[in-house]
Amino acid sequence: MKIRTAILGAAGILGQVFVERLANHPDLETTALVDVMVGKRYQEATKWRLGSEMPHDVAETKICSGESLSTKDIDLVFSALPGGVAGPIELDLAKKGFFIISKASDHRMEEDVPLLIPEVNGDHVSLIEKQRKRRAWEGAIVTDPNCTTTILAMSLKPLWDRFGVEKVAVTTMQAISGAGYPGVPSLDILDNVVPYISGEEEKMIVETKKLLGAAGSPAHVAVTASCNRVHTMDGHMESVFVATKKKAEPDEVKQAFRQFKGLDLHSAPKQPIIVRDEPNRPQTRLDRDAGNGMSVVVGRVRKDEVFGLAYTVLGHNTVRGGAGGAVLVAELCHRKGYL
Amino acid sequence: MKIRTAILGAAGILGQVFVERLANHPDLETTALVDVMVGKRYQEATKWRLGSEMPHDVAETKICSGESLSTKDIDLVFSALPGGVAGPIELDLAKKGFFIISKASDHRMEEDVPLLIPEVNGDHVSLIEKQRKRRAWEGAIVTDPNCTTTILAMSLKPLWDRFGVEKVAVTTMQAISGAGYPGVPSLDILDNVVPYISGEEEKMIVETKKLLGAAGSPAHVAVTASCNRVHTMDGHMESVFVATKKKAEPDEVKQAFRQFKGLDLHSAPKQPIIVRDEPNRPQTRLDRDAGNGMSVVVGRVRKDEVFGLAYTVLGHNTVRGGAGGAVLVAELCHRKGYL
Amino acid sequence: MKIRTAILGAAGILGQVFVERLANHPDLETTALVDVMVGKRYQEATKWRLGSEMPHDVAETKICSGESLSTKDIDLVFSALPGGVAGPIELDLAKKGFFIISKASDHRMEEDVPLLIPEVNGDHVSLIEKQRKRRAWEGAIVTDPNCTTTILAMSLKPLWDRFGVEKVAVTTMQAISGAGYPGVPSLDILDNVVPYISGEEEKMIVETKKLLGAAGSPAHVAVTASCNRVHTMDGHMESVFVATKKKAEPDEVKQAFRQFKGLDLHSAPKQPIIVRDEPNRPQTRLDRDAGNGMSVVVGRVRKDEVFGLAYTVLGHNTVRGGAGGAVLVAELCHRKGYL
Amino acid sequence: MKIRTAILGAAGILGQVFVERLANHPDLETTALVDVMVGKRYQEATKWRLGSEMPHDVAETKICSGESLSTKDIDLVFSALPGGVAGPIELDLAKKGFFIISKASDHRMEEDVPLLIPEVNGDHVSLIEKQRKRRAWEGAIVTDPNCTTTILAMSLKPLWDRFGVEKVAVTTMQAISGAGYPGVPSLDILDNVVPYISGEEEKMIVETKKLLGAAGSPAHVAVTASCNRVHTMDGHMESVFVATKKKAEPDEVKQAFRQFKGLDLHSAPKQPIIVRDEPNRPQTRLDRDAGNGMSVVVGRVRKDEVFGLAYTVLGHNTVRGGAGGAVLVAELCHRKGYL
Repeated sequence: MKIRTAILGAAGILGQVFVERLANHPDLETTALVDVMVGKRYQEATKWRLGSEMPHDVAETKICSGESLSTKDIDLVFSALPGGVAGPIELDLAKKGFFIISKASDHRMEEDVPLLIPEVNGDHVSLIEKQRKRRAWEGAIVTDPNCTTTILAMSLKPLWDRFGVEKVAVTTMQAISGAGYPGVPSLDILDNVVPYISGEEEKMIVETKKLLGAAGSPAHVAVTASCNRVHTMDGHMESVFVATKKKAEPDEVKQAFRQFKGLDLHSAPKQPIIVRDEPNRPQTRLDRDAGNGMSVVVGRVRKDEVFGLAYTVLGHNTVRGGAGGAVLVAELCHRKGYL
Repeated sequence: MKIRTAILGAAGILGQVFVERLANHPDLETTALVDVMVGKRYQEATKWRLGSEMPHDVAETKICSGESLSTKDIDLVFSALPGGVAGPIELDLAKKGFFIISKASDHRMEEDVPLLIPEVNGDHVSLIEKQRKRRAWEGAIVTDPNCTTTILAMSLKPLWDRFGVEKVAVTTMQAISGAGYPGVPSLDILDNVVPYISGEEEKMIVETKKLLGAAGSPAHVAVTASCNRVHTMDGHMESVFVATKKKAEPDEVKQAFRQFKGLDLHSAPKQPIIVRDEPNRPQTRLDRDAGNGMSVVVGRVRKDEVFGLAYTVLGHNTVRGGAGGAVLVAELCHRKGYL
Repeated sequence: MKIRTAILGAAGILGQVFVERLANHPDLETTALVDVMVGKRYQEATKWRLGSEMPHDVAETKICSGESLSTKDIDLVFSALPGGVAGPIELDLAKKGFFIISKASDHRMEEDVPLLIPEVNGDHVSLIEKQRKRRAWEGAIVTDPNCTTTILAMSLKPLWDRFGVEKVAVTTMQAISGAGYPGVPSLDILDNVVPYISGEEEKMIVETKKLLGAAGSPAHVAVTASCNRVHTMDGHMESVFVATKKKAEPDEVKQAFRQFKGLDLHSAPKQPIIVRDEPNRPQTRLDRDAGNGMSVVVGRVRKDEVFGLAYTVLGHNTVRGGAGGAVLVAELCHRKGYL
Repeated sequence: MKIRTAILGAAGILGQVFVERLANHPDLETTALVDVMVGKRYQEATKWRLGSEMPHDVAETKICSGESLSTKDIDLVFSALPGGVAGPIELDLAKKGFFIISKASDHRMEEDVPLLIPEVNGDHVSLIEKQRKRRAWEGAIVTDPNCTTTILAMSLKPLWDRFGVEKVAVTTMQAISGAGYPGVPSLDILDNVVPYISGEEEKMIVETKKLLGAAGSPAHVAVTASCNRVHTMDGHMESVFVATKKKAEPDEVKQAFRQFKGLDLHSAPKQPIIVRDEPNRPQTRLDRDAGNGMSVVVGRVRKDEVFGLAYTVLGHNTVRGGAGGAVLVAELCHRKGYL
């Protein structure tokens, strides 16, 4: 029997990606679609924006309200609600006993809320027990990071484990799909770079520390970030400078990246990190779909005279950094017996 | 009487920009056009690629060879030749007594060759005397920096003077015009970022040190760079992290930028550095033409926990970083009595 | 003394272009700024989106309501309101005696409302008298055409006069600025063509007939149009096929275009139509600013076996097809003694 | 046993697409790779430009010369050579007895050379016999049309059959991949439309007539074309106006498109023509991959007052209009017993 799943914000573009990813999932199925236009069929309520066709069985499903959900019928809730809106709704559902995996930032930084990238800090899932005890509820709120942080943290983790990491400076070149739909007006981005994405740099700093630390105890590492919007469709490119504790030669670094272990979960790529040796890779358009969009691609690993180490990392912001990452978190929670 | 000027590589796109900028110059005039198609009229030899119309008086001028130039008729030679090609030709002309200002990288890093941004290190022009003595010639080779370095160094200079600079990490997002014509194939850059520009990072590191140092003695400062090509027409955007010697509060930094002094030369902008306070500026398309493309625009001045200071700087790569910068160097040399 | 002008919808992007164009106008001045945020200073009420700086004298002007306007202080009203909204407001002001020049489509096709391109059908301005008599008001509503129609009609007029025109088929490739701000989401247009612009084809058909006809009597000509949105910033490109009554050789056609007469008005270009002989012109980015954006540029004039004649025409949609065109209409009305 | 295939111009981008499409083909296999760098392994000789990985078995194959090919080992030759170069080489091979399917335009318009779109004029394959008799050879030269023509002709064929077609006017908006690699410089196409593609309009006119006619006898139909390059990666969009002999209501036209029959061949899509009813489809990015890039997508079917009928059609220029189309021709020839 499959995990019965409700999607909050199902008609939005992120909700659509959840619907798409669950369509052929071996263990999860879409059971309830929650959004504002209650009572409408999904295909009426939704302006489908994905390249694929809307899955047939979902098209006729009627939109329902969050209040109508029951823990008897729903094993898992994905929250694709926007930040700010998501917080109180997720709290309310968790109190009612629902197990929630949220893409919203509202609860990410709370001490007893797991912020998960399965390959990086899957063990943080144990915070659920602490959360349940402390909050006296049977539900759970689990989160996954900002898309930009996910890509950075995946690349830092093998360095953290093998060399230790003291300082990180990262500059991002982020795709327009990161701003949702309608998102970035074309007049603002054609022949342009916008050197600012509201709240993004702050998230990269605090979330990276939480991800690299032990459960409940952020890592001691200095991080700075500069986030830019560029004219690409999908795929966030990041130029990274890293000061490691132990000396790290480029060849050792590449080895550490390549040996970083994948998980045996449905959505997990065999190689979470793919290393390219060509001088001009990764490139956004050529590499964003690596590992079905679930791998990150690293290149240009080299020494520098300020930090010691520099490289470039690219990941797919709406797959690994979006619904794909959250589904992988669900698979981990399922494996660990939480669902 | 105007300075009689020859342009080497006059038919190429950089040569064209020189022709355009000299068209209405009060002190310089185009006297000789040097290129391969000797004997052809300029308008036959050139596929004019600029938005403006080709200046009428130049259109009928016949292309001549470098060998035919005489120091009796020519006071100044601009070299718009490609790197590699430029080196020996410039050497040969300097031996014959010509005064050369070159955009090519071939001689930039030689100890007795001035590498000039007039507002930053105009005093280095004195290296000409050292060069003449040492090389026993009456000509001169003067250079200006790589476009990306120019933009960075202009922003660093007031920090260097007021706070001292220990470390710099910069990530660039560079326009396609930086690669010349035909340059970047459209298939390589549509919906893409290319995280590599051959030789660019190395130039940024060594040239920045030469520019910030005293004449003949490079500055002690650690620099690292990560250079990316993005899909913009003109304008290089740079995310900069700086560790200063003295503590530098954002407000003091902005003040230092704003007080950075312009020169009283024809092509010099009143404000070499323009500071924007909006969170999302500078933007490539909106700000690249500031000060007629001769100012750089700084924004997002802020503290960070790794370096202490972060900001973004944008400049026009083919104006300030191209022919405009070289013409400004000519104006400086003229003012100092070298022409 | 200058014509005192009110701008309806002054804070919007079209209103801003009006403000910009009036800033240094010899005969018109901005007197009142009408928009929703009544009482706010213009610079507070407006997110200025143009490349230029906001004119200083206007920045401090307070936004006022349409109701507060008085015919004692205002000689001319530019309406930059959106279609649908504009209609009743313009009617109301005309009843109160205001002279309105509108960019909105609401009243364009009414029989007694002039639809003007000064070089094409300036004599239609006489419809004002008919309008005043019929509607028993002292005000006036004058309109100018849709941007896409303006460009087409300017190129058709000399053919109409010299050869007669029986049939026109046009396919447009229109810039994103035609949809206003925020307008076209970047996710909808990067690496894409959208073969539809709501209402545009219908407007091209009926407006072209009104423009080429006598005042009050549309021309007999068959027109078909196919309108596409492409990924350019400014400038609408149009591929045109024309069946003329008299045979029209390409050389005669070019001559007719070149001889098409400009007007002696401040904003009127000397050459309303510029003809390029190169096989690959006009190009959107290279030619849209011809005649300060007030000329249209024609190229590829050639015979074909279906219509007899084919050519390509390009014009600047927000200048000639936008506020620039409306200001030119105002200059014509002024010259004719209506203001 | 599979058809043993040689690819001429195997290292170029079109050659690469042939290699990719044959990699998992049930009936064809890549046997010989012909290009200039004879003796090098394919992966050394090739700068692989496709999103996919180079097929493993081909990577180690050595490049050979055309002269070394033998009809004992090779059943079929795909020519991916550029126009001009292709002509004499193909002639020479045909004389030696090879069966050639060429993407080059050199022989397309010769009377005894089949120009094939299998769904449109598969019966023209019989021209091979005429060709063999007339030229007294056992080889064969078979061609498929220009990419832009293919897309147009597929949409015209069902109209031709059901209503008759008298006149066609088409304006294209073509992707940059149509110009090959390096092809269109990015400086020429960013924020631009180029209203000219050398030779393209002439090809559309003559090839359309050959395709719609009987074998050896071009159709009587008037065609005019205006070809534009726009800033899309893949997918040619075409705005079409058609005058039919019998009256054709939009609903009947859509029915004719939908009933147009697919072939039972490996690369043939079930529906050669897909009709979209939404007002704003087809769109280049959303629809170019329909039917694995082998279908064309039609939309905006409507009446007009000049021709009677207008619609928009989109197809994938490098798949259906490129190697995919040629492979389908090979499958047809195989089915018909020619291989």
